[in-house]
Amino acid sequence: MRSVRLEAVGSLTMRDVERPNAGPGELIVRVLAAGICGSDRHMFKGEYPTAIPVTLGHEFCGLVEEVGDGVSAFTGGELVTIDPNIACGSCPACRRGRPNLCECLTAIGVTRDGGFAEHVAVPSSQAFMLPADLDPVHGAFCEPLACCIHAIDKARIRPGDTVAIQGGGVIGLLMVQLARLAGAGEVILITRQLSRREAALRLGATHAFDPAAADTVALVRERTQGGADVVIECAGVPETLQTGVRMARRGGAFVLFGVTPAGLEVPVLPFDLLVNEVEIRPAYLNPFTHSRAAAMVASGALELNSLVTKTIGLEDVAEVVGSAPLSGEIKVIVRP
Amino acid sequence: MRSVRLEAVGSLTMRDVERPNAGPGELIVRVLAAGICGSDRHMFKGEYPTAIPVTLGHEFCGLVEEVGDGVSAFTGGELVTIDPNIACGSCPACRRGRPNLCECLTAIGVTRDGGFAEHVAVPSSQAFMLPADLDPVHGAFCEPLACCIHAIDKARIRPGDTVAIQGGGVIGLLMVQLARLAGAGEVILITRQLSRREAALRLGATHAFDPAAADTVALVRERTQGGADVVIECAGVPETLQTGVRMARRGGAFVLFGVTPAGLEVPVLPFDLLVNEVEIRPAYLNPFTHSRAAAMVASGALELNSLVTKTIGLEDVAEVVGSAPLSGEIKVIVRP
Amino acid sequence: MRSVRLEAVGSLTMRDVERPNAGPGELIVRVLAAGICGSDRHMFKGEYPTAIPVTLGHEFCGLVEEVGDGVSAFTGGELVTIDPNIACGSCPACRRGRPNLCECLTAIGVTRDGGFAEHVAVPSSQAFMLPADLDPVHGAFCEPLACCIHAIDKARIRPGDTVAIQGGGVIGLLMVQLARLAGAGEVILITRQLSRREAALRLGATHAFDPAAADTVALVRERTQGGADVVIECAGVPETLQTGVRMARRGGAFVLFGVTPAGLEVPVLPFDLLVNEVEIRPAYLNPFTHSRAAAMVASGALELNSLVTKTIGLEDVAEVVGSAPLSGEIKVIVRP
Amino acid sequence: MRSVRLEAVGSLTMRDVERPNAGPGELIVRVLAAGICGSDRHMFKGEYPTAIPVTLGHEFCGLVEEVGDGVSAFTGGELVTIDPNIACGSCPACRRGRPNLCECLTAIGVTRDGGFAEHVAVPSSQAFMLPADLDPVHGAFCEPLACCIHAIDKARIRPGDTVAIQGGGVIGLLMVQLARLAGAGEVILITRQLSRREAALRLGATHAFDPAAADTVALVRERTQGGADVVIECAGVPETLQTGVRMARRGGAFVLFGVTPAGLEVPVLPFDLLVNEVEIRPAYLNPFTHSRAAAMVASGALELNSLVTKTIGLEDVAEVVGSAPLSGEIKVIVRP
Ligand SMILES: NC(=O)c1ccc[n+]([C@@H]2O[C@H](COP(=O)([O-])OP(=O)(O)OC[C@H]3O[C@@H](n4cnc5c(N)ncnc54)[C@H](OP(=O)(O)O)[C@@H]3O)[C@@H](O)[C@H]2O)c1
Ligand SMILES: NC(=O)c1ccc[n+]([C@@H]2O[C@H](COP(=O)([O-])OP(=O)(O)OC[C@H]3O[C@@H](n4cnc5c(N)ncnc54)[C@H](OP(=O)(O)O)[C@@H]3O)[C@@H](O)[C@H]2O)c1
Ligand SMILES: NC(=O)c1ccc[n+]([C@@H]2O[C@H](COP(=O)([O-])OP(=O)(O)OC[C@H]3O[C@@H](n4cnc5c(N)ncnc54)[C@H](OP(=O)(O)O)[C@@H]3O)[C@@H](O)[C@H]2O)c1
Ligand SMILES: NC(=O)c1ccc[n+]([C@@H]2O[C@H](COP(=O)([O-])OP(=O)(O)OC[C@H]3O[C@@H](n4cnc5c(N)ncnc54)[C@H](OP(=O)(O)O)[C@@H]3O)[C@@H](O)[C@H]2O)c1
Ligand SMILES: [Zn+2]
Ligand SMILES: [Zn+2]
Ligand SMILES: [Zn+2]
Ligand SMILES: [Zn+2]
Repeated sequence: MRSVRLEAVGSLTMRDVERPNAGPGELIVRVLAAGICGSDRHMFKGEYPTAIPVTLGHEFCGLVEEVGDGVSAFTGGELVTIDPNIACGSCPACRRGRPNLCECLTAIGVTRDGGFAEHVAVPSSQAFMLPADLDPVHGAFCEPLACCIHAIDKARIRPGDTVAIQGGGVIGLLMVQLARLAGAGEVILITRQLSRREAALRLGATHAFDPAAADTVALVRERTQGGADVVIECAGVPETLQTGVRMARRGGAFVLFGVTPAGLEVPVLPFDLLVNEVEIRPAYLNPFTHSRAAAMVASGALELNSLVTKTIGLEDVAEVVGSAPLSGEIKVIVRP
Repeated sequence: MRSVRLEAVGSLTMRDVERPNAGPGELIVRVLAAGICGSDRHMFKGEYPTAIPVTLGHEFCGLVEEVGDGVSAFTGGELVTIDPNIACGSCPACRRGRPNLCECLTAIGVTRDGGFAEHVAVPSSQAFMLPADLDPVHGAFCEPLACCIHAIDKARIRPGDTVAIQGGGVIGLLMVQLARLAGAGEVILITRQLSRREAALRLGATHAFDPAAADTVALVRERTQGGADVVIECAGVPETLQTGVRMARRGGAFVLFGVTPAGLEVPVLPFDLLVNEVEIRPAYLNPFTHSRAAAMVASGALELNSLVTKTIGLEDVAEVVGSAPLSGEIKVIVRP
Repeated sequence: MRSVRLEAVGSLTMRDVERPNAGPGELIVRVLAAGICGSDRHMFKGEYPTAIPVTLGHEFCGLVEEVGDGVSAFTGGELVTIDPNIACGSCPACRRGRPNLCECLTAIGVTRDGGFAEHVAVPSSQAFMLPADLDPVHGAFCEPLACCIHAIDKARIRPGDTVAIQGGGVIGLLMVQLARLAGAGEVILITRQLSRREAALRLGATHAFDPAAADTVALVRERTQGGADVVIECAGVPETLQTGVRMARRGGAFVLFGVTPAGLEVPVLPFDLLVNEVEIRPAYLNPFTHSRAAAMVASGALELNSLVTKTIGLEDVAEVVGSAPLSGEIKVIVRP
Repeated sequence: MRSVRLEAVGSLTMRDVERPNAGPGELIVRVLAAGICGSDRHMFKGEYPTAIPVTLGHEFCGLVEEVGDGVSAFTGGELVTIDPNIACGSCPACRRGRPNLCECLTAIGVTRDGGFAEHVAVPSSQAFMLPADLDPVHGAFCEPLACCIHAIDKARIRPGDTVAIQGGGVIGLLMVQLARLAGAGEVILITRQLSRREAALRLGATHAFDPAAADTVALVRERTQGGADVVIECAGVPETLQTGVRMARRGGAFVLFGVTPAGLEVPVLPFDLLVNEVEIRPAYLNPFTHSRAAAMVASGALELNSLVTKTIGLEDVAEVVGSAPLSGEIKVIVRP
């Protein structure tokens, strides 16, 4: 079968490999749709550790094609979404109910073969059933959505709250929708590209500001009469970390979601954090949220079609992952 | 000025009394709209303690007409909603941040003159500004809404959750809207009157069941695949307390909001509560939620017009309060 | 090897059976100490479902004697405590992070062979390492302690709070110690037997009341000036459920821990729960708390020796489990 | 009467002024003991805004000597502790239950005359009764303790948790005791002065490290096997902010309590915060905690005597406040 293999840092190639077989407790999934994520580009460049060689692809959805020994929850033919993050269950973090902080976390599409392939073997406990008639492209959104839901849990939005979201990539545009669903009265998206600001307004944002054209801290504080109840950072750049904390209301929360490079330092003002009691709450990965993401995608509560800006085959993955995102690109979907 | 006075249990009369003057720290509010609430009927019948004589009316909205000494936040002319519940600020409950449990709570329209009158004197700290162009009838909904927001806080609804609401009075129909705003994926209203079930579906409920026609516990459990994440009891009758707890999912919450008679006993099944870990969370009054209610009403996020089933003058209050609610009645508004 | 087998309801016998072998992912543990628990008596009488035949014993501690394939965390020789409750990891409850509500929960000593035996096979992920020099009898307390820690988490005791604990069995006496450790200013134990009240006072309770001799609701309300911040029910009888809710302060919490018979109804007063905002929070089993229990036992923070009122061999288990607890009995330990 | 007046930045003088009279709702308190706090030194130097002229002193305890009109809770003669922070009750923060973030906060000893005087006028709602036989010096600790309790609430310590506390001033030494009371299994104090580390060990710390002599991040991480569950910063210097965040366990919390200069920037590592999910929770002032502090002091649960390193009269206040703290100084108490 065809699969897209990371064979060395900077070397991603489509290869013909043998179709995997289902080990005990495993499923073979025929991949119907897989999303390309910013992390795939980081892995390609060696900025994020992976197994080598490995098939990339950690956001995917497909049909159960084969069922290994000891699996009773699936019989074959089901449409499933996969949680790629496999917690060990036995480390101190897992035993305290914090699987996203597992000390031995492995991940499908990172440390074992993933979804940029025709077939993939997965532990059955990582698979979550979807309605048979769901568009598999929607199913491929469950993974990033599950991370966003964890962030929204940490945000503790109350009906009527004001929420500012920094960064209008696919994450920011999912957060806009989740913040609305969580009852936010006002949702402000801050991103540079006009097309994304327009998309946000269509998806439920009440305002969208361009950080290149205006002082967004002042705009948010004015619009929210003193600061947003919740700020969610989804850009992953130093600038948004510094401005984001200052956009929060006294007593508000800043949810840290974007990934900055390891080792990068960003200055904060402890006095301001203290007297304003602004909490900084990081949200990392998807602890116990994948089933909620699957249910939400299945319910149709989210507008996902307009987030897909391109659909490609396996033969084009290497080029897309190997290049910087195009202007206007939100989510590229691979259909093997 | 005209005011509707409770002069003895069972004796409510419109009288001409002297217009009050603003004491230090007080405002005189010209009442534009006041809601009649089930509690007014309880007070009329002596089932709830009040001052005697007293002007009833604790859900109201009006214009600031006079400003007492020492008040700087108002100058006159503002449209305001009043939080009728005055916490003492000094009892153990107040000092622990639980003003709704204040040991010396007084209330406008209950222990001092209220809003079924042309004018009413209120402490300025109980007044909350509304946009000048807001329909004052909407302003009269802030008080019940503030209580509902407290319940919704206690419900801790997460996006995608299923919520069952028992009782389709004005409270239940506000809760339906709040549950949707809080991100509920499914909202099920349970009430006997068809017109209310229809109203709920218009206001955002995904399902509405008739408890007289079917086993609603079974219906809710089936519809939610095992029970609702959150059940909110807004009927205040023994039956809903018993069925409500059984509608909740394992690990779910039952929010107790409806008022049953003091002394009434309702049986629960401790074994079931325990092994299902269903929490019972009562929500009483409006601690720190009136300003949020005012902001939400001002934002127009709620559909309130269709909740008003009748508008009357002061001269008709005694008759409405003195009779049982008519079939189909949701909220009666008084315009003095 | 010798093991104590439940062969039918009411029939518990010591038998010679074959020593188990370690399957893949399993450990063989040589049992050094095992606690007899009230549930063992319920299983004996058929009041709680079990496999038949099965070796009982779900609170135990021992040495790793054999290590199955694929186990890397143990090499043999370690002292371990076992979490008997095995969550499936794949049901909706498990996937939402609520393993104690697992729909397919199995349990060592209940649905598969347990610790009233010389050796027992356990999945390695259920084993938690203890310091080599710890008294194994202390290790046998980890299981009930883990359940208590879950209850204490739900109690959310703040430094200085007043806590009332109902029922002075082993659970109540562990709760007394945990409540002190959690910062309770006053800890009141309510139990009938004098020896237990005396034990509680030695273990950190500030007061101990006899429910047979006085109106404990009045005593607690007086002593705490209005009610305890937290009440923890550990007796499992209807009387304590009714009195316990009334011992809680306005705004306080009632933690339901004791197990009453399935189907038993207990009346509550909804009006009182509501206007006092007393929350009812059930705590069931030990979600993510076994490692914390093991650490706490290892630290020596708890006084456990005085809770052991008798130590027996395997040959005496059937008689103890088959009879009602003796007066004065707290915990009987089996040393195979 | 004598009082210590800040008459200009850098000018603090004992003066004879007129004894105040009790206005409506006020009490006159004869001061028995008042604590000198680091903030007094900041005010003296103009680093913190105050009224000018004003009598300093915001941590004090005394006897009610005169009762103004409309005060019913006091009759005279009561021993009281005063919460100096007066929230307005009407600003958005107050109305949302966040009085410590009040936009119009005034403070006794800062913006109105305080406790470095023989008598002081205070609003009766700021006074909290203490047992008549309590040492008034202990009563003077209620104010800083109330701030610490707020921090401990935010820390959410669970029984058995490991807690690291940075800074061994009076705050750090109160936090050591509170962390123990909150159930911490290990409490590590980090401070430079040997005498304070010794004091901490006497007061319940399990370890005390010298940041000048060793890499405390490494020591804490080693001692706690991966990081403390909770770190509480009570030094208020950039170094501890940077090291503190790195002392926290994955999934742990960093409570920001120390006051750094306004405008000072401290670098953080967002990547580390994110992948470790370390929350930063500032705790500012004493929202709804003064009565709990008073109860805790009254109960005798804290060792306070050894925190008092010097007792002076009003005539010596100016010199102590005008000089840097002496080595070994913890709390200086003024007895007018
Ligand atoms: N915490 C987790 O578990 C988790 C999980 C998944 C992803 N993430 C992270 O979440 C972040 C967002 O992911 P994504 O897939 O949406 O990435 P993305 O497409 O790179 O989106 C980030 C967007 O932020 C915008 N941006 C850049 N500088 C900005 C500035 N100064 N102010 C405002 N916006 C700015 C850019 O859009 P414009 O060009 O329009 O400005 C950029 O496209 C990434 O850092 C990703 O690594 C975290
Ligand atoms: N906790 C608080 O702070 C607070 C504040 C305000 C109000 N409340 C209480 O909230 C409750 C609701 O207030 P409301 O103004 O909406 O009162 P309401 O108009 O009396 O609404 C309650 C409705 O419940 C429905 N009902 C009666 N029996 C039922 C049953 N067996 N199953 C399902 N529904 C049933 C009835 O509608 P159908 O005829 O359609 O069945 C009834 O009209 C009252 O008890 C009120 O006292 C509490
Ligand atoms: N929720 C969970 O996860 C969980 C886990 C383990 C155990 N449990 C349950 O926790 C409860 C306590 O367990 P245990 O092992 O300590 O059982 P236990 O020895 O039976 O203790 C209960 C004690 O409560 C006392 N009691 C009985 N009636 C009372 C009354 N009216 N007022 C006050 N005290 C009364 C009795 O002592 P006196 O004779 O001194 O009155 C009795 O010994 C049991 O119901 C058990 O099933 C729950
Ligand atoms: N958030 C609030 O509501 C609130 C309320 C009251 C006070 N505070 C603040 O809390 C902090 C502590 O108050 P305090 O009265 O205890 O002040 P303090 O006496 O100044 O205590 C701080 C101590 O930190 C120690 N320290 C300095 N550098 C250190 C380092 N690098 N590592 C470890 N320890 C170091 C010093 O003791 P050694 O010489 O022994 O190192 C110093 O005495 C102050 O910043 C104060 O402003 C905050
Ligand atoms: Zn793990
Ligand atoms: Zn009060
Ligand atoms: Zn399960
Ligand atoms: Zn204020």
